[in-house]
Amino acid sequence: MSHVLIHDPTLRDGHHAVGHQLDAAQLRAYAAAADAAGIPVVEVGHGNGLGASSLQVGRARLSDDEMLSVVREALTHSRMGVFMLPGWGRAQDLDKAIAHGADVVRIGTHCTEADLAERHLGHLSERGVEAHGVLLMSHMAGPEQLAEQCARLVEFGACGVGILDSSGHFLPADVTARVAAIRAAVDVPVMFHGHNNLGMAVANSVAAVEAGAEIIDACARGFGAGAGNTQLEVVVPVLERLGHTTGIDLYRLLDATDFAGRELMKVPPTIDSLGVVSGLSGVFSGFKTRVLEISGREGVDPRDVFFELGRRQAVAGQEDLIVDVVAALRSAARDQERHA
Amino acid sequence: MSHVLIHDPTLRDGHHAVGHQLDAAQLRAYAAAADAAGIPVVEVGHGNGLGASSLQVGRARLSDDEMLSVVREALTHSRMGVFMLPGWGRAQDLDKAIAHGADVVRIGTHCTEADLAERHLGHLSERGVEAHGVLLMSHMAGPEQLAEQCARLVEFGACGVGILDSSGHFLPADVTARVAAIRAAVDVPVMFHGHNNLGMAVANSVAAVEAGAEIIDACARGFGAGAGNTQLEVVVPVLERLGHTTGIDLYRLLDATDFAGRELMKVPPTIDSLGVVSGLSGVFSGFKTRVLEISGREGVDPRDVFFELGRRQAVAGQEDLIVDVVAALRSAARDQERHA
Repeated sequence: MSHVLIHDPTLRDGHHAVGHQLDAAQLRAYAAAADAAGIPVVEVGHGNGLGASSLQVGRARLSDDEMLSVVREALTHSRMGVFMLPGWGRAQDLDKAIAHGADVVRIGTHCTEADLAERHLGHLSERGVEAHGVLLMSHMAGPEQLAEQCARLVEFGACGVGILDSSGHFLPADVTARVAAIRAAVDVPVMFHGHNNLGMAVANSVAAVEAGAEIIDACARGFGAGAGNTQLEVVVPVLERLGHTTGIDLYRLLDATDFAGRELMKVPPTIDSLGVVSGLSGVFSGFKTRVLEISGREGVDPRDVFFELGRRQAVAGQEDLIVDVVAALRSAARDQERHA
Repeated sequence: MSHVLIHDPTLRDGHHAVGHQLDAAQLRAYAAAADAAGIPVVEVGHGNGLGASSLQVGRARLSDDEMLSVVREALTHSRMGVFMLPGWGRAQDLDKAIAHGADVVRIGTHCTEADLAERHLGHLSERGVEAHGVLLMSHMAGPEQLAEQCARLVEFGACGVGILDSSGHFLPADVTARVAAIRAAVDVPVMFHGHNNLGMAVANSVAAVEAGAEIIDACARGFGAGAGNTQLEVVVPVLERLGHTTGIDLYRLLDATDFAGRELMKVPPTIDSLGVVSGLSGVFSGFKTRVLEISGREGVDPRDVFFELGRRQAVAGQEDLIVDVVAALRSAARDQERHA
């Protein structure tokens, strides 16, 4: 039994599901409702984090400045969180977030590239800001490697570390092994961020807590890309029922998530077939639109494309691989026809 | 590692989500797609089973005769399953189902009332039909009690027994304890049927298999009442990844469930706030409409009504309790105002 700190990225990760188009009234109302429910950290921003709004991954309706000032004003008790991927955001974006009163800053890198966070974590530590380092696509590394990477993040100044199951690939035993290894390697709180592609986001979050994680990410209605994130209003009472404490008021939490369900999203995330395939293959569901487009044009099964992208360990930013994979699958199919 | 027999009640339990209004073309096409995917048992009928179509719980679009003959004709390899709740259906409904070629007949009773299945299980055994006995609302009994009830079902002639988590209340450890106790008490296959109110349907099904269950119920997209059932196209590849076998073809399964997602339901089930409360309180989500109606009229929080119904151990058919609970909550609120 332990206290679990709930970190709510509804207004950041949820942005992926609506093309980063939340407006000021939506941000303000959800942040106020989350604050009233006692959610400890409310994270806000473009889906890909500070500085990421762009033609390539989608322009957000609001600037970082606008998002941060609206949410800052709406929060009375909850702390404000921000997220940044080095390369997508820069040091000056961090300074801007600090100026707006961000309380918790997360720097995210690919699971084997913690070193990319060194400069930013150092910069944040110097400025006295609570900085965390988190590893994306963490199914691509084993427990020991993740533990080493997390230890590096702590050396760089992170006072919290953890892993994102970015493609929703983990089953509970995978999470247990990884969180336990990280827990044994660092003396700062460990976080876990789940996705629901295999219907395991809540079970994986429970496994993380039972393995020693102290920070759990969860979004209202699971609001997020593809099959969605760990569902906030589900994981909180489940953790409480198992004897953990979150400090969150259940009815106000349900009110906040009802608002989110009504006002932030068209429909809540569900697990469709490509969501399952994305989880099984370990490929980020953000590939879906382009996979469907290119495989449709070339007459290739998009599920085969996902599984082949998984074998090639594709990560976000490598969408060009889709063209190669589709061409390879087409040519293999032609060979097969010729020999048939 | 074991072989798991997947039992698919999409065309029976899913009926709850659409007022029992599936038509012949929908039944035929889904049954054919499930058959092509290699799903061992396809269950069909009114949501409440054979003979249950009525004004009280909703009239089905098609008669039992129509549903059974359409699905029978569509199945080439899969076996046809039917479900009956004594009291809702009668012996003559069973005879009708047998005449239509039902291969697997399930008799369901409340978790402490296995005796109600005695006559029907005997009748089916005499006629040489594969009969199973299953216990509803199984969170209302402990492992030993469920094991005793299941042993009774076997005495009555059941060649398969199991439990339904009708209100989606279980967490994996609850399932493990119950399935293990049943497994130890009987020498016939044990089944588990989950609902997803606490986001645990897939994890609970895995826990059931790991505790010795050999039959798992699951529906396309989780199609079913409220927060829905265990999602078929998720639990199958998850079980396979864990080393179990199902004999089901993944791509054809995804095709079948894509059809279901498109053609059988308006939207797939998701977990809304009352879905969470239903799971936490252990009250069947079928109460939702009437709870909302009566609590809205009387100015009482529907969540309080669910929790109080849970304390009173309400079960389906006891919807009249809602009026009592709402009146009690109103009067308690008035007393509080008076003393404030």
